[in-house]
Amino acid sequence: MTNPVLVEVTRGPLVESRHRGMVIAVDGDGRTVFSLGDVDAAIFPRSACKAMQALPLVETGAADAYGLDQRMLALACSSHNGEPEHAALAADMLALAGRDVSTLECGAHWSFSQPVLIDQVRAMDKPNALHNNCSGKHSGFICAACHAGVDPQGYIGYDHFIQREIRDAMESLTGAALGHDNCGIDGCAIPTYAVPLKGLAHGFAKMATGTGLAPERARAARRLIDACMAEPFYVAGTKRACTRLMQIAPGRIFAKTGAEGVFCAAIPEQGIAIALKCEDGTTRAAEAMIAATLARFFRDEPEIEAALLAEATTSMHNWNGMHVGDVRVTEAFGRA
Amino acid sequence: MTNPVLVEVTRGPLVESRHRGMVIAVDGDGRTVFSLGDVDAAIFPRSACKAMQALPLVETGAADAYGLDQRMLALACSSHNGEPEHAALAADMLALAGRDVSTLECGAHWSFSQPVLIDQVRAMDKPNALHNNCSGKHSGFICAACHAGVDPQGYIGYDHFIQREIRDAMESLTGAALGHDNCGIDGCAIPTYAVPLKGLAHGFAKMATGTGLAPERARAARRLIDACMAEPFYVAGTKRACTRLMQIAPGRIFAKTGAEGVFCAAIPEQGIAIALKCEDGTTRAAEAMIAATLARFFRDEPEIEAALLAEATTSMHNWNGMHVGDVRVTEAFGRA
Repeated sequence: MTNPVLVEVTRGPLVESRHRGMVIAVDGDGRTVFSLGDVDAAIFPRSACKAMQALPLVETGAADAYGLDQRMLALACSSHNGEPEHAALAADMLALAGRDVSTLECGAHWSFSQPVLIDQVRAMDKPNALHNNCSGKHSGFICAACHAGVDPQGYIGYDHFIQREIRDAMESLTGAALGHDNCGIDGCAIPTYAVPLKGLAHGFAKMATGTGLAPERARAARRLIDACMAEPFYVAGTKRACTRLMQIAPGRIFAKTGAEGVFCAAIPEQGIAIALKCEDGTTRAAEAMIAATLARFFRDEPEIEAALLAEATTSMHNWNGMHVGDVRVTEAFGRA
Repeated sequence: MTNPVLVEVTRGPLVESRHRGMVIAVDGDGRTVFSLGDVDAAIFPRSACKAMQALPLVETGAADAYGLDQRMLALACSSHNGEPEHAALAADMLALAGRDVSTLECGAHWSFSQPVLIDQVRAMDKPNALHNNCSGKHSGFICAACHAGVDPQGYIGYDHFIQREIRDAMESLTGAALGHDNCGIDGCAIPTYAVPLKGLAHGFAKMATGTGLAPERARAARRLIDACMAEPFYVAGTKRACTRLMQIAPGRIFAKTGAEGVFCAAIPEQGIAIALKCEDGTTRAAEAMIAATLARFFRDEPEIEAALLAEATTSMHNWNGMHVGDVRVTEAFGRA
């Protein structure tokens, strides 16, 4: 099927660009409550599934043994801006396991946020692996391996203990078989597996509700989601969509983006989760789509609905500050 | 019609993201020689039509009166990186008209190129309007207005002399009526008009061949295209697609990108021009599409064809330098 146009970018009186995509919301039993486009298609979740990838950190007992606080658990699920607080907290996590930046295998990059990048350039010659947007996740991997008595060296490899644990957890949550046939390498060097969008949403609905999960996994899942909702700055950072969305309804919305236009979210109190992908991989469209989808579930709370719908439309201004157009969702989302 | 998928982004063994778009190549008489997707759709050319917008600079006699050299004419057609050479040359152009940076009305922004941005942050507190990627075009506007005896203040306005001159030239070249109904505001604050993709290509084919143009316009058009081909660094900058494409066949390929996934090109010796747009506005896809389309016209010159096809596929590496996937054109382009 051809995916529908879900986001339009306007300029003056006309539509300039169009983004297609697929969106699904499901409950803990996997029942579809909202759907647009080809939701059976396999997509790479990329960083949107970091909360799933953090399960071994809690389930191995490492989080308790090292005394990780909620900020650290949120950082383990994050794609952060590389702001000083993010880099420092990743270093703190590594120190609890007796490690430091040299154990990280994620590589280094300047912040994707221009204001943060400018601050970084003024403060340092070059970034290190602590500034990588995935450093919290990787620090969590290292904590889990060290606590389990496994050498963390090579932890990014397909056959390492931590990647096998993640693969098992994600297979169970998403219902998809994961292996070399649907495996790619992520930006931070670990394996990433393409799964049907519907399975990805169902996995997050299980995490948010505990439906069908063993008690320890249900507790670990909810603990990670609660940590993200409690510390949204540590899931992304200043002005980032994940952070803003979670701040709109504190403790009630979980939201996590992934590269190439992916977004996942959950509303635990309603027992539903959402997964979506912009077909062409564009972040601006995925951000509008997740906000509009979330808004559908807050129609009884006009202030929250309005705040989410405001996130679903972004005014674009030129270098002189003049309004030139908007990024906005299409009628496919209905009232929302 | 639904535009076809023209570019795929792979990760490991799978396609991760897909870009749709439309492409047309025409000759000086407007005959279609290659076409994909809905080429009658109106699109905003954005910066891809800067060579058309520079016609008044030459046709008013300003370029000769102020002694603008080929680098300056190229810069007048450019979306440059804001490298020191670009900013300095824009200042030189303004000085020839007795003006300086304070006359520019394009606003200021940090370079879109990360390496250049980093150099800028280390060299200055903040960028000024000379660093705006459109400063060469705006300096050309100011030269044209000053030479014509018109106050340049307000030159970005719809009713200013220079914008009327541009509107007249673009209507004549593209065959499209331009007015408020299809007018938006560009990133640099001047009017931009949506025109059918086919008309945009025909306009560039007329510029490259002179077909149907008055002798003065034909000379001015060819002079601008020749200047861009002679000084490709001043059309874009270090590592930029426009610059690289023109360097592959020096003096034989003209290429100019525009925001939101637009690319225009011409091969004057073959009498053809190309216009394309990625439906979703993504630059990586537009760059692959223009390289693959240009390659079709160099099948008799294997070295040039191979160099262009190499530009049509971009290997993606993660922060550790591992190959993770490719941006590549689809079978829609045939052998190319």
